[in-house]
Amino acid sequence: MDTSGNGSDLSAFFSPRSIAVVGVSEREGNLAANILENLRAWGYAGEVYPVGQSEGTVHGYRVLASVEALPPDVEVACVLTPAPTVPGIVAQLGQRGIRAVCVETSGFDELDDAGRSLGARLLEATRAHRMRLMGPNCIGTSCPGSRTCVSFALLRPLPPGPVAIVSQSGGVAFSYLRDIEEQHLGLSKSASIGNKLDLDEVDLVRFLDTDPSTRVICLYLEDIRRGRALMEAAAACSKPVVLHKANRSPLTEQIAASHTASLLTDQSVVEAAARQAGILTADGSAAALLAAKSMLLPPLRGRRLAVVSRSGGHAVIAADACAARGFELPELPTDLLDQLREKLRAGVIRLGNPLDLGDLWDMEVYGQILERIAGLDRIDGMVLVFVSISPVDPAAPARLVERAAQISRQTDKPIALALVSWQDIVQHVSAAVDWPLFATVEHAVEALAVQRDFHLRRERASAPDAREVRTSAATTAPLSLERCLALLGERRLPVVETRVVQNPAEAAAAAEEIGFPAVVKLASPDLVHKSDAGGVHLDLQSADEVARASEQMLESAADKRIEGLVVQAQAKEGLEMIVGLRQDSAFGPVVVAGLGGTLVELFQDVALRVAPVTVEQALDLLAELRGHPLLTGARGADPVDLGALAVLIERLSHLAVQHPEVIELELNPVIVYPGTEGCVIVDVRGRIRRGEAP
Amino acid sequence: MDTSGNGSDLSAFFSPRSIAVVGVSEREGNLAANILENLRAWGYAGEVYPVGQSEGTVHGYRVLASVEALPPDVEVACVLTPAPTVPGIVAQLGQRGIRAVCVETSGFDELDDAGRSLGARLLEATRAHRMRLMGPNCIGTSCPGSRTCVSFALLRPLPPGPVAIVSQSGGVAFSYLRDIEEQHLGLSKSASIGNKLDLDEVDLVRFLDTDPSTRVICLYLEDIRRGRALMEAAAACSKPVVLHKANRSPLTEQIAASHTASLLTDQSVVEAAARQAGILTADGSAAALLAAKSMLLPPLRGRRLAVVSRSGGHAVIAADACAARGFELPELPTDLLDQLREKLRAGVIRLGNPLDLGDLWDMEVYGQILERIAGLDRIDGMVLVFVSISPVDPAAPARLVERAAQISRQTDKPIALALVSWQDIVQHVSAAVDWPLFATVEHAVEALAVQRDFHLRRERASAPDAREVRTSAATTAPLSLERCLALLGERRLPVVETRVVQNPAEAAAAAEEIGFPAVVKLASPDLVHKSDAGGVHLDLQSADEVARASEQMLESAADKRIEGLVVQAQAKEGLEMIVGLRQDSAFGPVVVAGLGGTLVELFQDVALRVAPVTVEQALDLLAELRGHPLLTGARGADPVDLGALAVLIERLSHLAVQHPEVIELELNPVIVYPGTEGCVIVDVRGRIRRGEAP
Repeated sequence: MDTSGNGSDLSAFFSPRSIAVVGVSEREGNLAANILENLRAWGYAGEVYPVGQSEGTVHGYRVLASVEALPPDVEVACVLTPAPTVPGIVAQLGQRGIRAVCVETSGFDELDDAGRSLGARLLEATRAHRMRLMGPNCIGTSCPGSRTCVSFALLRPLPPGPVAIVSQSGGVAFSYLRDIEEQHLGLSKSASIGNKLDLDEVDLVRFLDTDPSTRVICLYLEDIRRGRALMEAAAACSKPVVLHKANRSPLTEQIAASHTASLLTDQSVVEAAARQAGILTADGSAAALLAAKSMLLPPLRGRRLAVVSRSGGHAVIAADACAARGFELPELPTDLLDQLREKLRAGVIRLGNPLDLGDLWDMEVYGQILERIAGLDRIDGMVLVFVSISPVDPAAPARLVERAAQISRQTDKPIALALVSWQDIVQHVSAAVDWPLFATVEHAVEALAVQRDFHLRRERASAPDAREVRTSAATTAPLSLERCLALLGERRLPVVETRVVQNPAEAAAAAEEIGFPAVVKLASPDLVHKSDAGGVHLDLQSADEVARASEQMLESAADKRIEGLVVQAQAKEGLEMIVGLRQDSAFGPVVVAGLGGTLVELFQDVALRVAPVTVEQALDLLAELRGHPLLTGARGADPVDLGALAVLIERLSHLAVQHPEVIELELNPVIVYPGTEGCVIVDVRGRIRRGEAP
Repeated sequence: MDTSGNGSDLSAFFSPRSIAVVGVSEREGNLAANILENLRAWGYAGEVYPVGQSEGTVHGYRVLASVEALPPDVEVACVLTPAPTVPGIVAQLGQRGIRAVCVETSGFDELDDAGRSLGARLLEATRAHRMRLMGPNCIGTSCPGSRTCVSFALLRPLPPGPVAIVSQSGGVAFSYLRDIEEQHLGLSKSASIGNKLDLDEVDLVRFLDTDPSTRVICLYLEDIRRGRALMEAAAACSKPVVLHKANRSPLTEQIAASHTASLLTDQSVVEAAARQAGILTADGSAAALLAAKSMLLPPLRGRRLAVVSRSGGHAVIAADACAARGFELPELPTDLLDQLREKLRAGVIRLGNPLDLGDLWDMEVYGQILERIAGLDRIDGMVLVFVSISPVDPAAPARLVERAAQISRQTDKPIALALVSWQDIVQHVSAAVDWPLFATVEHAVEALAVQRDFHLRRERASAPDAREVRTSAATTAPLSLERCLALLGERRLPVVETRVVQNPAEAAAAAEEIGFPAVVKLASPDLVHKSDAGGVHLDLQSADEVARASEQMLESAADKRIEGLVVQAQAKEGLEMIVGLRQDSAFGPVVVAGLGGTLVELFQDVALRVAPVTVEQALDLLAELRGHPLLTGARGADPVDLGALAVLIERLSHLAVQHPEVIELELNPVIVYPGTEGCVIVDVRGRIRRGEAP
């Protein structure tokens, strides 16, 4: 991890003046030799110094027999020797003054305990010499601009372009690179970060933000260890960041005991954190590159689109896709349609939006039409579908794409262009014109949806304090109700009047003080849901009733551990919510809220945010719930006191930040009242890191 | 539409011995001439007879100056003359003994009223001569096996293969054909059916079922007019049918007044009907062809998969995809893993399922591993990820694919193979080996999910009676409560005891007869939700209370139309459901059910079926609800009487079939009781086609 602060210059990894490659031999199958072959194939022009156990010549490079034989000013070293030798070699490289090292060898932390201790020694060596380390267990970097490629797997030279790839997996990095080439996107820089012992995605995002050749950054990650730092780096980044997070299987998740936690998955935290920080998320590499491609279009500033198509069927498909993604297709002005009618096959096709241009083939007329529509105030962006399956001179679609690109740039409105044609035509046009092409109508519409989402996210992007977060401990203990109440009291969270007592007589006395109707519950670590086991008596009207109910409960729970009896004022009925906090291992404290009740649990309708949140962000969180209309007065019911609920969430989020030892706290139910009548917490449960007191 | 019964032989459209092309001229831009060019390019070997207004030679074919000049035994005619001339020409063709005609001209029903009457005349002409008509407004058929292609747009010759395409849109047909070629799937037959004046998708499915070259049928449809016939044809079809239905925008849907209808969209009926009939549905052409491709694998008979990958990252992605699609990844036997450990780079990669084979390159060992795993009883199918980005002799991956195909066929278990490589390698392997390849890991997993869904659907596929369905009328009228009750009584549906009376005194008397507690409601066409407007009084304990409540309601509703006062026995509390019927314009009567309450409405958790349904099918319908656990006893609550509810739905479905004039009937709420205590309908509303009595 980056311990040296922001903005480290990592250019030695991507555009080095000289490269040492350690582990080269003349033996067949030597993987380090492939690094030399890649550098040769890519046309790398700097100095290359292979180092091996013996001298020799590999791919035309002379091999040095030791690290000591290296000249003093080598900028980066790539190491591909057996894992046990790596820490010593890296230390030697540090002594030779090398400050950037890329360890491609595997067999470290990802393998076993022995590998973990090797990793620790490796990291120690780099720190001792103030070196930056990429890897281990990676395929290093590539950069078409500097003709650098230090992968131990052979890779065709790639064309330069605006997309940067940071991938935890070497194999997935490779498939991203393939897609980038085949989609004519072009690569600025790629980095395979492997085990992330030192450099991680946070460092790379900060560096790529300063890289003039990069316009969009794609991350493929299998874990996130510094979630808050990533949020901060992405929120501060001037370029779009697209996150493809794998390893998201709920099967691998620790199953938590309470409602809120069971509705949470790490992936939902990732999604929430990304939304907060203005990061785009993608379900796979195809979606990630579609998002990257869409970022090369001018921004979409509204939801009103025009669809222009050469095929009626594709226009229908485009309209469906627009409806599914919440776009509007405003009517086009009648004078425009009248003009079009004259230019097109009169009377054979109905004109509207979508606009079916039939077999119009005059690129000049096409240009005029696009220009007129793009210029309309009522249109925020366009989907242009150009179907060309019949044999055609590829110059014609290339001309159209060129013109569309020009109009899109001039009007600063996105024109997402689906070129539905044979691969060879698409290749020709892509090579001829620097403009993103989409393979299907659905992709073009999706690209505009990504655009819109991105700008909405960016407008309100923010990152919480990125200070180091303590990860959740494996062993936790339940918090007693009294300690939960003390925590809530500390942040002035509204709890219904509650006393914890030890016997029926005390319960009766407490009820007298609180007033009637009263509620008595059993506090026991063995009862997850109090109501499941008859552990709650409601609507008690006298001290006697309270005493009797208490006795009855204690009897029926004779086999359970009992913390005490809880006596409460009975809260008025209202809308039940569940609100909670949790310490996430990657992102630290998060808050979560959802409607109460079994049905909501079935629908998993919860929303969450990385803490702390402002009242406004808490309102945003609530607005994300599908059940939100119930809060704002669906079916003529009274809207509830959203403001009070948002304040409660805001305060809980600060509690979460100030008490990282509180692993989980669930307020269930929180009853919310109409108008400005506030809300009240009726029950609370929590878990703490074992051995710590709040 | 097919009025001549099942199993028409449409081979004249796909493999004709001779073809007439009407509308040919030497003029540049003549579209009919393109048909000749296509036939020439595809190598069509039968007789071709161009017909035009004057004699001449086009693409080497001699043009006849009139239909009368045609020989008597021409098998099919393609017509591409101006729309107004078409009915006359088709009549002439019929007189010449031609029984199959493909009208590619547009400007008929799709355009305007004049076009509609031209269409009627065209249909009349074909019927007078017992001709079958494809189109109008289409690009006809193609068939690589017979080297036939009669499209007026030029099309490269396509390789033969197992996939048939039936498309309502010519443009979309073209993009499907492009995809089929580029994915190396191969085409059996394509048909562009345009306006479907005569032949439609139902006829084509029936015909393609008999076509030996077709293994899977893809339908692209923009409307469905004979939904039940399509269900019947697909359910009876021995081959998988994949449906890509466009024109599904909810914006275009008529907004119905009641809950049930507002939760329904035509697309949800299409989805339900497809599920019932064993049709696979796809959201777009990519998904449709993925489904088609997956059908070329052996069937998947369970949910237990093994993932084998050459890249750890891709293995992670595959495991995520498996989890997301509900697959299990059982552990592999330890003896197998021990053997593998010896064959692989010892100690550098952890073995398990997913199985990361690292950089193993020995295709023989690969084959042994695949064979062992495929042979395991605990494994139902495999995902094989072969990443090959470095330069490679394409013979190696081709050998692996060949071997995987062999093992898959031998074990009759699907091996979905993601070949992650450069386009040229993929092309080479695809051409060399007859086995479906998937472009991404996610696609390979999705293909197995489609397989599993398909076989689940097929197992229980059925189609309702396919008799002609009357489409919903535009104008409907509300049904009175009394008529609703009569309908429900007819099918012995359980309604809470109910009287409709006209004044408070009658209400009091009715309540005395029914017993207390009683409920009084106002029946008014102006009150959509009775409870919204204070139109319901519950828990009335005496005749007096009933009378007073009645007076009060009548007063407060003085501005509304009043049908009467409804007096009911107050139903016990239970689980509230909404059950309804609707007449769908494409599929006729459907039944729908969902949980009651505002929350469920927000989540749109309803399920539906084309009527009639059996009790078992009704239980299936209920099991589809996300809220289903509430019915079966979530959280220790008593399971409700599902059997009684299913019987109610079954009876309602028969009512829907027997009363097509009842456009909509909503039972809301239906209260369902625990155990075997049954269920009861508390309220009902309906609409009828105006001017008809039930």
